[in-house]
Amino acid sequence: MIIAHVIIHSMKLSEIGEFGLIDKINALIESRAEKSSPAWKNLIVGIGDDAACWKNSSAYTLATTDCLVDGVHFKTGQSSWSNLGWKALAVNMSDIAAMGGTPEYTLVTLGLPEDVLVEDVLQMYEGMLEISNRFGVAIAGGDITASQTLFISIAVNGSSDGKPLLRAGVKPGDLIALTGYTGLAAAGRKLLESNKAELDSPSVHAFLKPSPRLAEGKLILESGGHACIDISDGLAADLGHICQASKVGAVIHVDKIPIHPELKSEFPGQALDLALGGGEDYELLFTAPAEVIARIKVKSQTLVSIIGEIVAGNSGHVRILDRAGEEYHLKNPGWNHFRHG
Amino acid sequence: MIIAHVIIHSMKLSEIGEFGLIDKINALIESRAEKSSPAWKNLIVGIGDDAACWKNSSAYTLATTDCLVDGVHFKTGQSSWSNLGWKALAVNMSDIAAMGGTPEYTLVTLGLPEDVLVEDVLQMYEGMLEISNRFGVAIAGGDITASQTLFISIAVNGSSDGKPLLRAGVKPGDLIALTGYTGLAAAGRKLLESNKAELDSPSVHAFLKPSPRLAEGKLILESGGHACIDISDGLAADLGHICQASKVGAVIHVDKIPIHPELKSEFPGQALDLALGGGEDYELLFTAPAEVIARIKVKSQTLVSIIGEIVAGNSGHVRILDRAGEEYHLKNPGWNHFRHG
Repeated sequence: MIIAHVIIHSMKLSEIGEFGLIDKINALIESRAEKSSPAWKNLIVGIGDDAACWKNSSAYTLATTDCLVDGVHFKTGQSSWSNLGWKALAVNMSDIAAMGGTPEYTLVTLGLPEDVLVEDVLQMYEGMLEISNRFGVAIAGGDITASQTLFISIAVNGSSDGKPLLRAGVKPGDLIALTGYTGLAAAGRKLLESNKAELDSPSVHAFLKPSPRLAEGKLILESGGHACIDISDGLAADLGHICQASKVGAVIHVDKIPIHPELKSEFPGQALDLALGGGEDYELLFTAPAEVIARIKVKSQTLVSIIGEIVAGNSGHVRILDRAGEEYHLKNPGWNHFRHG
Repeated sequence: MIIAHVIIHSMKLSEIGEFGLIDKINALIESRAEKSSPAWKNLIVGIGDDAACWKNSSAYTLATTDCLVDGVHFKTGQSSWSNLGWKALAVNMSDIAAMGGTPEYTLVTLGLPEDVLVEDVLQMYEGMLEISNRFGVAIAGGDITASQTLFISIAVNGSSDGKPLLRAGVKPGDLIALTGYTGLAAAGRKLLESNKAELDSPSVHAFLKPSPRLAEGKLILESGGHACIDISDGLAADLGHICQASKVGAVIHVDKIPIHPELKSEFPGQALDLALGGGEDYELLFTAPAEVIARIKVKSQTLVSIIGEIVAGNSGHVRILDRAGEEYHLKNPGWNHFRHG
């Protein structure tokens, strides 16, 4: 690899063209992909044909897509190319996790300015290979095109033997639970923007290289959880989404929200607002009866916190109560593209 | 619909935000999608959850993705938004056709500048609904994001009960056959660029609103065809692709290439080069023994022309012979992004 590295150093995309880049990507995948996973074994046609093809081996197929755009979701230079590749795939795998499924196949579409360095694109694939190898996902195809704006549009197919966890499954009387900590990714973004970031801090790591909660999603499904969502828009906003889909309301208690020590130390005045409103956490928010959550807590290797309860009626409304039982008003309720003010 | 049309007229995306647009798209799909197809019936979770979910009903899943970028694949203003939506889905369905499969589910990712009109985005969905209804495809999910450059990244999942048609299946002795006419789309693009286009002419139609050859792809698979590809890069270039994948060579004869009357009349000196090198035709190029092609010709409702034969060795090399048996040299061998000169 070192030899290849030297040869392609500072070579621009325009020098080798679309097909030249695809050849290099294919060679990288062939040399690095760990093809022992069920997904790779069931893949009949991968990169290089009109479409990918795999043998079905489960009752249900899951499919999701998520796109990262330069200047919107990331800034080139702020994240390494490798982390960018990891994250682009991680956010899609997180959607599969939120259904309780297993991610299996991915199609990778890149829109690339012609002065992008070939080396950087291959580094992005190194990051995608790192996470796809970890979770047994096969890179099955994609599309590469010129674009003035750099973007990475990923589709992931997954499988589930049982009916998946839906947003609309919440039932009145359910408790609301959360894996891990929220607000870290937003804190990491703030630290990077103020140039105060240490690259190995938990918050910067959460922002640049989030981990999909795949084991936890499966555990929630198998244990009898009612509904689940991954937190990409912010805890309060995503709780609103599942309540709206389920036509119920929710009450959460600020003193039950787990606050990571780094949030407290770096953003003492904003820690709670970051935990409630910061997006891109990719933790799982789920609802279930108390006894189901108790079982999940025993089996989970990740922190699971009960943060509130579901109430009948009041569709989609989330009440946030402080220690005194008073309504707490969040400043930034969540992420919404395009909308100003 | 007329009332909605008036209300949303000239409303910009930035005024209603991502979630507002998604609500309008969902309402449009709910009102227009014809949900009687097997794909819609097997869809368990559609738009609005973390991932889409459907019940598997075939042995193999096919998956493909293709992206259209403003300024690269289309120019806003040159095509109607409705045709753009049609084409973005058509080019993906064409990849499924080239495998002999049935397209079933699509995920639609839009990268949208914030000053795009909501009405135009909904028109784009009207075009997608037109073609998805025609072929029974379910719009199962997607992602909408801000982007300075407008792009449409589509993933389509399909199914096949038998092993699909591959590029690598060509065998020496196969004949080479083609559905329909090539070069029309390139001609349509040229006519539009020179402002000489009539919008209902066959070439402009081929460029702006191509039809995937789904019935033909299935017929080729069921009849015992060996290999197939859809012509997106140009007839000669795509023939090179399947020959390279199959480690064989090919000979094609210029006097056997079907030339559409409009190519002859509009581009008398370039008709052959357009037919051999013009891209984006989305016709199917396939190889099979003579008796298989004979059966396909009888059953096909589309023109099928035998244009040459496969030869052993000479991997990936395509010889083009003129009427005198001399080598014919094509000026523009095919489409390759990024590459200059």
